[in-house]
Amino acid sequence: MGSSDNHMNSYHHTISSETIGKVITCKAAVAYGAGQPLVVEEILVDPPGNKEVRIRILFTSICHTDLGAWQGENEAQRVYPRIFGHEASGVVESVGEGVGDIEVGDHVVPIFNGECGECGYCKSEKTNLCETYRVNPFKSTMIGDGKCRFRTKDGGKPIYHFLNTSTFTEYTVLDSACVVKIDSKAPLPTMTLLSCGVSTGLGAVWNTANVQAGASVAVFGLGAVGLAVVEGARARGASRIIGVDINPDKQLKGQAIGITDFINPKDLDQPVHQIIREMTDGGVQYSFECAGNLDVLREAFLSTHDGWGLTVILGIHPTPRLLPIHPMELFDGRRMVGSVFGDFKGKSQLPHFANQCMNGEVKLDEFITHELPFTKINEAFELLIDGKSLRCLLHL
Amino acid sequence: MGSSDNHMNSYHHTISSETIGKVITCKAAVAYGAGQPLVVEEILVDPPGNKEVRIRILFTSICHTDLGAWQGENEAQRVYPRIFGHEASGVVESVGEGVGDIEVGDHVVPIFNGECGECGYCKSEKTNLCETYRVNPFKSTMIGDGKCRFRTKDGGKPIYHFLNTSTFTEYTVLDSACVVKIDSKAPLPTMTLLSCGVSTGLGAVWNTANVQAGASVAVFGLGAVGLAVVEGARARGASRIIGVDINPDKQLKGQAIGITDFINPKDLDQPVHQIIREMTDGGVQYSFECAGNLDVLREAFLSTHDGWGLTVILGIHPTPRLLPIHPMELFDGRRMVGSVFGDFKGKSQLPHFANQCMNGEVKLDEFITHELPFTKINEAFELLIDGKSLRCLLHL
Repeated sequence: MGSSDNHMNSYHHTISSETIGKVITCKAAVAYGAGQPLVVEEILVDPPGNKEVRIRILFTSICHTDLGAWQGENEAQRVYPRIFGHEASGVVESVGEGVGDIEVGDHVVPIFNGECGECGYCKSEKTNLCETYRVNPFKSTMIGDGKCRFRTKDGGKPIYHFLNTSTFTEYTVLDSACVVKIDSKAPLPTMTLLSCGVSTGLGAVWNTANVQAGASVAVFGLGAVGLAVVEGARARGASRIIGVDINPDKQLKGQAIGITDFINPKDLDQPVHQIIREMTDGGVQYSFECAGNLDVLREAFLSTHDGWGLTVILGIHPTPRLLPIHPMELFDGRRMVGSVFGDFKGKSQLPHFANQCMNGEVKLDEFITHELPFTKINEAFELLIDGKSLRCLLHL
Repeated sequence: MGSSDNHMNSYHHTISSETIGKVITCKAAVAYGAGQPLVVEEILVDPPGNKEVRIRILFTSICHTDLGAWQGENEAQRVYPRIFGHEASGVVESVGEGVGDIEVGDHVVPIFNGECGECGYCKSEKTNLCETYRVNPFKSTMIGDGKCRFRTKDGGKPIYHFLNTSTFTEYTVLDSACVVKIDSKAPLPTMTLLSCGVSTGLGAVWNTANVQAGASVAVFGLGAVGLAVVEGARARGASRIIGVDINPDKQLKGQAIGITDFINPKDLDQPVHQIIREMTDGGVQYSFECAGNLDVLREAFLSTHDGWGLTVILGIHPTPRLLPIHPMELFDGRRMVGSVFGDFKGKSQLPHFANQCMNGEVKLDEFITHELPFTKINEAFELLIDGKSLRCLLHL
């Protein structure tokens, strides 16, 4: 365990060179079937291949995407045994051939939406979807050779990867395109949040919508991503930040971060969008859908002002369903876009974002509501399922 | 008849002051029921009210929106007797009280999507939807007093208005917010096209998408609006302009204006978007849906490049149908927006656009394929229904 139990911002981990080039035996939380409790057991982790990096994970947390994959929501994703997890931070243990920008001992954050820096997509300012390393929930092996770097301890059975990351393990192997080096002074516990939820939410406000001071914003779904949207809007100086959630407990949390108004749709006898339009003289400038629910998406869309409203979709929606919008409704001037990883180009832009978090421009402390040792990962899943935690930080 | 029969660019009409303030008796084409031939008959036209303008229409043409309304596609629009028509040009006969920017004798073009210049929408750079005078297919009376300015010749029965314009008549009354003054030297026959189709298509390219030189573009549906998109893309210097239509006759017309490639989906055994992606190394930057068909809309959406593709919807789609797009598909970075009247603010921006047409920056001659006297308006409807005409110019 490379972490203190009671003081979040202190941690230490000494990297030795003894393991370089060797197979490492370490603890991991392995999924053997949809919805079955993860099994914390020893596994084997191969050395990094060409352009790969092996990382000692120090902290990891659980996001709803892990939850959905673990529950096997999508049949095509049911590949076992597998190691989930994509929010984490750690220290580089070793690097494979051809890795130029990452060194042993670097403090790093894994990203599920990689950046090679060379392809036409990475060179375009319009997208953060790398041709090769973009998010792909259906990929379960390494890109280089199509094989796994994890094996069961008897060495016989491959253990599959998840979302370019697989962080529910003491050691993981990632493509270097999916590893972001951050300032060694940055606090790794909160940097964990930059792997997914916080970057996704703040980036949607800063990059996708480019919300400006004085703007009006509605956020549908106040989980970690939704609250990161609130924090992003607060940091940009939005004058009105309306939080919407069916869980009344979210009101206080939302207010602690920055919502100016709270709406619980269960308390209303008219649609949310009508209330928001009344509150905001016709609708908010920006709405953010962070619930992954089509009815909520429609309300988010209709809550914006005609002529210039923009709805950003962050929620993960089950397939195959259609957008609950009529083509002619787009003629009212409301727009709708999807946002992946907050439109951050991970390797280029996350280091600066990490600095902004260190400087206090972004406040992250409200997001980690629980901490547990890694071996209690199944308890952490329950906390998320029950809506009790935003992020439970697991210490490895 | 204020027009020459055989030379499109010559016309004359002398306005006398004798009719000012009086009811005018003139010819109009009146619709008495869904799909029934229009009846060309004498009607009464009241003087313009407060902030209204009475116009001697000299040229008018028929757009698919007239066709749909005439056919009674939407029950809520079935209001009779009524005068359709919204593409036209003419000369101001008289102005009502409170009209400051329009004078008797001005050459003008009516616009169905007005601009008051005073409301929050008109003052915003983000929209061309005026609070009061925006396009509204369900409105059938004047905004000022909720009454009609047209009556049957016996004086008893009101004749309803259409789309802020009603141009199938020698004289019409419009809100001054829906009247654009253009250069008196501009050729009124082609200026008629600026009322709708040409402005809608070119504006979608210039204003909504802001297509730049070298861009790749696909245009679905090569009617007048689609061909105006082609002309807009050509004028901007697009390097690839792919026209898509199931009518093989559109190929030559498209080439005359500027398409570089033609695709007839009926000739293919794979989806259009696959062909376009192969032709363009992953997809075009911009696609324009000008067919009003949901399957076509989906193909247009999928024909753009992931990461940065933009689909602009111009087609009018029957209600109530949902967008044929899954929410998660927006996560591939393709976007989709609607465009009304090419995002032109009519009164502010159309005079400059008219000058660009006069200067030859925009070529309009290909769009008027037929000319007929006004009394043959039902023949002009048939030409459009049969796909034989782009625009048939009616001389009044």
